Amino acid sequence: MTTTLAHGADLLARHRETLDRARDAIRTRAYFSAYPESASGKIYGETAAAEGKAAFDARLGRPFALEQPTSGDGVATERSPYGIDLGVTYPVADVDALLAAAVRAGEAWGAAPIDARTGVALEALARLNRMSFEMAHAVQHTTGQGFMMAFQAGGPHAQDRALEAIAYAYEEMSRIPERVVWEKPAKPEPIRIEKTYRVVPRGVDVTIGCSTFPTWNAYPAMFASLVTGNAVVVKPHPQAILPLAITVEVLQGVLREAGFDPQVVTLAVDTPDRPLAKLLAQRPEVALIDYTGSTEFGDWLEQNSRALVYTEKAGVNSVVIDSTDDLKGMTRNLAMSLALYSGQMCTTPQNLFVPRDGILSSGEKVSFDDVVAALVSAIDGLLADPRAAGTLGAIATDGTLRRIEDENAKPGVVRKSAPVANPEFPNARVHSPLVAVVDAADRDRYDREAFGPIAFVVRTADTAESLRLATSAAQRRGAITAIVYTTDDAVLQQAQRWAQDGKVNLAVNLTGGLLVNQSAAFSDYHVTGGNPAGNASLTDAAFVANRFRIIETRTPVS
Amino acid sequence: MTTTLAHGADLLARHRETLDRARDAIRTRAYFSAYPESASGKIYGETAAAEGKAAFDARLGRPFALEQPTSGDGVATERSPYGIDLGVTYPVADVDALLAAAVRAGEAWGAAPIDARTGVALEALARLNRMSFEMAHAVQHTTGQGFMMAFQAGGPHAQDRALEAIAYAYEEMSRIPERVVWEKPAKPEPIRIEKTYRVVPRGVDVTIGCSTFPTWNAYPAMFASLVTGNAVVVKPHPQAILPLAITVEVLQGVLREAGFDPQVVTLAVDTPDRPLAKLLAQRPEVALIDYTGSTEFGDWLEQNSRALVYTEKAGVNSVVIDSTDDLKGMTRNLAMSLALYSGQMCTTPQNLFVPRDGILSSGEKVSFDDVVAALVSAIDGLLADPRAAGTLGAIATDGTLRRIEDENAKPGVVRKSAPVANPEFPNARVHSPLVAVVDAADRDRYDREAFGPIAFVVRTADTAESLRLATSAAQRRGAITAIVYTTDDAVLQQAQRWAQDGKVNLAVNLTGGLLVNQSAAFSDYHVTGGNPAGNASLTDAAFVANRFRIIETRTPVS
Repeated sequence: MTTTLAHGADLLARHRETLDRARDAIRTRAYFSAYPESASGKIYGETAAAEGKAAFDARLGRPFALEQPTSGDGVATERSPYGIDLGVTYPVADVDALLAAAVRAGEAWGAAPIDARTGVALEALARLNRMSFEMAHAVQHTTGQGFMMAFQAGGPHAQDRALEAIAYAYEEMSRIPERVVWEKPAKPEPIRIEKTYRVVPRGVDVTIGCSTFPTWNAYPAMFASLVTGNAVVVKPHPQAILPLAITVEVLQGVLREAGFDPQVVTLAVDTPDRPLAKLLAQRPEVALIDYTGSTEFGDWLEQNSRALVYTEKAGVNSVVIDSTDDLKGMTRNLAMSLALYSGQMCTTPQNLFVPRDGILSSGEKVSFDDVVAALVSAIDGLLADPRAAGTLGAIATDGTLRRIEDENAKPGVVRKSAPVANPEFPNARVHSPLVAVVDAADRDRYDREAFGPIAFVVRTADTAESLRLATSAAQRRGAITAIVYTTDDAVLQQAQRWAQDGKVNLAVNLTGGLLVNQSAAFSDYHVTGGNPAGNASLTDAAFVANRFRIIETRTPVS
Repeated sequence: MTTTLAHGADLLARHRETLDRARDAIRTRAYFSAYPESASGKIYGETAAAEGKAAFDARLGRPFALEQPTSGDGVATERSPYGIDLGVTYPVADVDALLAAAVRAGEAWGAAPIDARTGVALEALARLNRMSFEMAHAVQHTTGQGFMMAFQAGGPHAQDRALEAIAYAYEEMSRIPERVVWEKPAKPEPIRIEKTYRVVPRGVDVTIGCSTFPTWNAYPAMFASLVTGNAVVVKPHPQAILPLAITVEVLQGVLREAGFDPQVVTLAVDTPDRPLAKLLAQRPEVALIDYTGSTEFGDWLEQNSRALVYTEKAGVNSVVIDSTDDLKGMTRNLAMSLALYSGQMCTTPQNLFVPRDGILSSGEKVSFDDVVAALVSAIDGLLADPRAAGTLGAIATDGTLRRIEDENAKPGVVRKSAPVANPEFPNARVHSPLVAVVDAADRDRYDREAFGPIAFVVRTADTAESLRLATSAAQRRGAITAIVYTTDDAVLQQAQRWAQDGKVNLAVNLTGGLLVNQSAAFSDYHVTGGNPAGNASLTDAAFVANRFRIIETRTPVS
């Protein structure tokens, strides 16, 4: 145990500057990134790309080994949306034995000093950072993301989000003194009490991953729970296991070296026909659940689990177009937002509300049809770029493919989704964005999530109706992003009401490099937790403060 | 609106030093109190006691007026445990109209600056402090507390707890900047985004009060929710309305003067035969519920409400007696803990585990029977003091009277509960503490909450069994306090395990002035939130951080 603690503290010392800068960044919310997002050889090393690819290739077609109890069976449920064979087999979890191991491993982990736990977590992040190329391939071939997005979102950005959660948790824990002598004035002499305060974990955290951003969405929860002393069972989506399996492997390695039971972090792989999430959610050992996925199952968890449940669910993101000074910039920005990873981001806009009488662009009237035409033209222009296949990525699930096919056959489609060739992966399932024009009254069509490369331009009476519909959608269906385009201050004020009443983060007049889809660690709050798209933000104090409890001891001092 | 905001900021300026000292205190956890607990005329003014009594008397036998919608009916459900007539009639709430008013009033309140809301809350506390004598009578005659306890716990201590919650909430909110310009390095030039962050409330908070500590238990929630921008509907216990009605009256007054709709805070009075809590808990407008009361209803709320629910429920508090250097001090301290407010505190010990072979006292063996005899003798000694009636207070509810009667008739009672005269109030229902000796195997008898002046000395095989039973009770039944008496370091270590595994705060060797029942604002965490006695601590960051959400706006800077 002495070696353990010394080692943990050493690890923290090694990464102290990173932690301190992150703690500073969550206060200032100025730009900060601890892990370079550029995949340049100058940063990651000239051989990093090739080594990462080789490491990924070496994973394929074989069992993935982790130190944890299994039922003895292996499963291989992942299919690359790019059409390559993966064939990685994972041990099927024995839930009873896995939870018992997590509880057992969590004992010493929960009792270890905060600094030791934080050191282990930061060292694991540093190692994951060095593996960002390998991780990029793992994310690309499970989620369908293009390589550059898979590198950034699956690697450095996810690592930054993890660091952010660690910084929040460290901040909350380190504000509690370990020991004070409390002295209350009294006669004949003061009452003096020695008080100690210990941070203790809630129990076991089950982090349920999603199929599109397995690391980015799971890391904040996993790392926040770990540094607050909880054992973590990671339940990946059957289609996106490898990125989280690699993460667990790395964490287990650091835990082992630091003298902890590696089963502080384990992987609970399941299959679509024998899902484990419900089972885990109802176990008394499980005190925390973190979930990213469908609204239906998220709602079930919120209502049925006795654990503390943090959810990010589906939403319907809106764009309200009132007026602009830069029609070209606006449509180019929106086209990019719609095309990026084929609309498979929880932050992708779905409904674009445009008044039937058109909009003002640099003072000139532009008809409704011309706005639609400009958007379609911007998408077509984007797809003409040789980098388009990389932007689109590939379609992750069969469900999304079916939705595209259904929508293509419906009325009002002004831009059909069509297959797009990917020169690198001939079998990749790539489909261009679909745009349909619908009336405000066609709520059955647009007023629900249509996940994938499907966008609706909704014809409204005026901007007031646009804002009303967008607000209502956020309140009833949830929303993670919102954009308004306007040159009118009164409309901007009304859009602020939309953000406030719909409890959704708002972007204003995005015409340049920033996409609404993007969310920057240490600065942007991802999910407000105030509408049905999720009951928590991934990135605030409330996300971490309840993952531990404080136990006090009072002893009179004589 | 301009006057409103100026006024709110003025109020904060007036109380800034109090807030700053409170913010400092929650970090240092050293002794701090903003509101003097001494009822001395030198502090509160020579006429304060008489004026407070007169103000209380003036409330009796008449309707209590508040600015809020009512059904037109009035109810008077309170009975003084001291036998005086109260006859205060309260307006019965019209739930639909009340919630509509709360939502409406909450609009401007939620949009007001944090400083304005905090100023209003602190001004209300300052006024409540000046009314502490009036509040003392209101608390005494609804809860049955003795006058001094009613003064302290109902007045200054409750005010300190409110201030503590305000300090936590202010701390959490003020760490979020209002505006930053975020500048990300990029080519050819950096991306510059103006970001604003707004704190927005969750919605309406329903605070459900209890019959024993109506202000102390409700204030942290009420004031935390208010300063974070939520409207608050206070649902008092039918037996303890007046203290919260006065509180709502004061808050409404300050709100009105500051230019806000006073219905930001309203009172939802109900009757035992037409309870409102379930109804309120299932309304979509209600985003937060704070509850103190029975385990049964607390569990129901946790499982059935869609709101965020914070509970303090019942528990079974244990004392493990292993050895001591001060038998007299120990039994005197325990006697006082058992007698204080006739065991009607959520912090009162119930089960005292003593090894059947007795304990070591200053190195000498003291038999089990002699430990019991020493405890009974200490209680008898305490009751012989003329101040005993003030210590005991009166029995608040018929249910507790019945429990006393039932237990008196059971085997093993070594000290029967008997009526005690109160010279000041001849009709007061005062009953002395009951002590029964039971075996560890008699779990049906002691292993559940026996609320009121009922304590069990549980005969165990040894201290190891005592600790095991105490830990198990905390885990299954919940516990808010725990005490160990030991001179043995190994036992102390094991007791630390009890605290950690049972997630309960531990007191060690209390033999002097500090009682386990007492909990000091700014220093002691009340309820850990980690065992079935409650899902939240009333006094940590997690209690406040989720009462608001953050809405961000991003606007590119050209």
